[in-house]
Amino acid sequence: MPSMNTYFDTFDREKEALLKEFFQLLRFRGLSADLKTMPELLACANFLEKKLADLGGKVEKWSIDGHPPVVFAEFKSENKDAPTLLIYNHYDVQPVDPENLWDSPPFEPTIRDGKIYARGAEDNKGQLFYSLTALQIYLKKVKSIPFHLKWVIEGEEEHGSTALHQLLPKYKDKVKADGILVIDVDMHNFAKPSICLGVRGIVTMDLKVTGPKGDLHSGSCGGAVLNPIHYLVHILDQARTADGKINIPGFYDQVKTLSDSEKKLFTFESAQELSHVTGVPPAGGEKGFSSGEQTTIRPTLEINGIYGGYSGDGFKTVLPSEAFAKVSCRLVPDQNPEEIGKGVKKYFESKSNPSAKVEVHLHGTGGSSVQCSPKSFLTNAANRAVQATFEKKAEYNLAGGSIPVAADLAHFSGGTLLFVGTGLPTDNIHAPNEHFSLEQLRYGTSLIGHLFEYFVEEFNR
Amino acid sequence: MPSMNTYFDTFDREKEALLKEFFQLLRFRGLSADLKTMPELLACANFLEKKLADLGGKVEKWSIDGHPPVVFAEFKSENKDAPTLLIYNHYDVQPVDPENLWDSPPFEPTIRDGKIYARGAEDNKGQLFYSLTALQIYLKKVKSIPFHLKWVIEGEEEHGSTALHQLLPKYKDKVKADGILVIDVDMHNFAKPSICLGVRGIVTMDLKVTGPKGDLHSGSCGGAVLNPIHYLVHILDQARTADGKINIPGFYDQVKTLSDSEKKLFTFESAQELSHVTGVPPAGGEKGFSSGEQTTIRPTLEINGIYGGYSGDGFKTVLPSEAFAKVSCRLVPDQNPEEIGKGVKKYFESKSNPSAKVEVHLHGTGGSSVQCSPKSFLTNAANRAVQATFEKKAEYNLAGGSIPVAADLAHFSGGTLLFVGTGLPTDNIHAPNEHFSLEQLRYGTSLIGHLFEYFVEEFNR
Repeated sequence: MPSMNTYFDTFDREKEALLKEFFQLLRFRGLSADLKTMPELLACANFLEKKLADLGGKVEKWSIDGHPPVVFAEFKSENKDAPTLLIYNHYDVQPVDPENLWDSPPFEPTIRDGKIYARGAEDNKGQLFYSLTALQIYLKKVKSIPFHLKWVIEGEEEHGSTALHQLLPKYKDKVKADGILVIDVDMHNFAKPSICLGVRGIVTMDLKVTGPKGDLHSGSCGGAVLNPIHYLVHILDQARTADGKINIPGFYDQVKTLSDSEKKLFTFESAQELSHVTGVPPAGGEKGFSSGEQTTIRPTLEINGIYGGYSGDGFKTVLPSEAFAKVSCRLVPDQNPEEIGKGVKKYFESKSNPSAKVEVHLHGTGGSSVQCSPKSFLTNAANRAVQATFEKKAEYNLAGGSIPVAADLAHFSGGTLLFVGTGLPTDNIHAPNEHFSLEQLRYGTSLIGHLFEYFVEEFNR
Repeated sequence: MPSMNTYFDTFDREKEALLKEFFQLLRFRGLSADLKTMPELLACANFLEKKLADLGGKVEKWSIDGHPPVVFAEFKSENKDAPTLLIYNHYDVQPVDPENLWDSPPFEPTIRDGKIYARGAEDNKGQLFYSLTALQIYLKKVKSIPFHLKWVIEGEEEHGSTALHQLLPKYKDKVKADGILVIDVDMHNFAKPSICLGVRGIVTMDLKVTGPKGDLHSGSCGGAVLNPIHYLVHILDQARTADGKINIPGFYDQVKTLSDSEKKLFTFESAQELSHVTGVPPAGGEKGFSSGEQTTIRPTLEINGIYGGYSGDGFKTVLPSEAFAKVSCRLVPDQNPEEIGKGVKKYFESKSNPSAKVEVHLHGTGGSSVQCSPKSFLTNAANRAVQATFEKKAEYNLAGGSIPVAADLAHFSGGTLLFVGTGLPTDNIHAPNEHFSLEQLRYGTSLIGHLFEYFVEEFNR
């Protein structure tokens, strides 16, 4: 007996063919962080161009030299005055190292226990793929689309969205829209399906401490020469107070504090839920806030990498001339990424002394935090789509991650923004053994399909 | 006109042939830290075995499974009652990375401006080679050797001398000697030639901080989860006070404090001399001590390597599950390496908490600091050898480095110990572009040759 849900039915019936196509998408090894993978990024963009054209879209690629192209598709309604929906996804993925911790090759999708393991299985190829599947089913159903649909798929989300940031002012007329759906977020779990009303901003940087003119022998010079690793370790530790606050002047100046009633709008991930994902009790955060608040409404300064001296087998008694760290800050309303970046750079560089030079290289422009209205027509449509898919009322959450270009996208398209997605905190995105389940694909297809169904009605309400 | 110095004359005359042979020795890529290079370590041991046999020595190799062999040679005097001199060198070298910072390949010796560039050019193949050259010239000169000469050349000095530590008790009769010459140290400069009356001890270890069960997304989890890099950075920084003291209980308990009159015996490297080597003013040390004291008569805790998270191009917003450091302590009289190692391990491991486990793996047994008498017959012989070579009175210094096995060697051979060598602080040992000059080889040949000449006379004085 068929259900009342065309998207589930079609997904179940065409699963084999859909997975085959999804696996093709997952096999492209395009990492925006590594431009050596540009041929794979280009091939992936071509694959998407063809897919969107096959669905009836008018597709173009927007390019800036040296950057992967942005794929842009337009599906026009016969009704000229229909509202416009813009969807955002990305086709680049995170690096895969440490590759030895993967149980199956990251670019050879493998199904185990109903989960597809691959880099990008969730972030963001999985969420892109179910959205395309939803469109495919929807178009077959409606024959004639009652709204204008635009789709932006960039290839640099994991590396600061540099090209798209530059292209949006140029193509601002193309991206004009009434609603913008960013399909790149999580729900806490499917027992409590949710809509995401905000993401944190981000700014990323490289730190370098340079000491002696060359590597030294730690016997001959150790104890007197300021070891760049010691100094790096020192300034990084000093950047945080015992209470877990970021110890950098002005860092919290623009942070918008939420009142208790404002907080009540959101379901925060509990410490228990977070521990389930991480395997450890949360203990790294700012005193006075719950772990769910620490990962969403509070900013961070995180060391994403550190290296210097000898890291091979055995031992080498070197006193190295340099030491490095990779640092990112997650930002909340109303922190300005450029200002925070400058402030953090100034703080660390002010620690330079005649024996150790500290240099900070900021990556790109970062991205601001964005928050969405719980009362918009788009949120209303999403609420109905969640109800149709999960047979439950949607909760609202906030994402700890960042969609660097979301703020610009909202600004240039001029529309109402919303984040949706069927990611889960347990998907291992950005980590080894990233995965996405068949259930997540199936729910996602229904969620986006129903959003298409309710979009015009809610817009006109 | 020939000089009065046979060693200089012969070195100058036979330089081409000597360099050819030296280069053969430098080409062996045997690193004790990397057992994959075992075939190269074995080939180097064979090369030395042949060389010592060609000089007339009775050679044997002492082995322990899985470790490079110790080459042992004996040159017996016809005078059964003659005193015995034991020489110590090593044929293993330090790892070469970062290899991209070498101006010529580390295992293809290259001469530039009178300096031979290669890994091991000084430490210790250069000092070994001039010592062998000195013996070759001396034996030709005297025809019949007036003392018993023993030579121990190990292949694991840069990795804790594990095999030799175990072999010495077994071969204690073989190594019995009246004088022991460890030829593996520096002079500050040749304007003030020196004899080394002591080395620091050492203990080395790996630190590992384990947090979440897998790598996490720094957006979803950052701000709440204790990042293992943050915690590593924190505990490493806490291990040192603002005054540069090691903040570990008991660390200084056994440290022997030298009186001002005891200090007067030694020429300490000045801050200016050290800056000349390093390019930066010394700023990493313990308050209340000069930089020359900090590198010799004071113990250290040095971070020789640190790594965790992402270190590639671009950026990866990972919150890693693990972070690592390599730490060594240089020790002074009367610190016991085993006790200090245990104390440091206990200190760091006590920092474990439910969100971050700290584990310390100690490498081998380390080695104690050793100090030699300025009044021994061996020091007297060395004083005369310095005078004959440099035409200057020798000063006394202390080495900041370590010869892990020196204390055991003195103990089991039962003789009087001394450290000599024509290394210089500018040789870049343990670092890229290690080098040793023709002048250093030439001085070294004369220094050791004259030590042979004066050994019996000073012993019998």
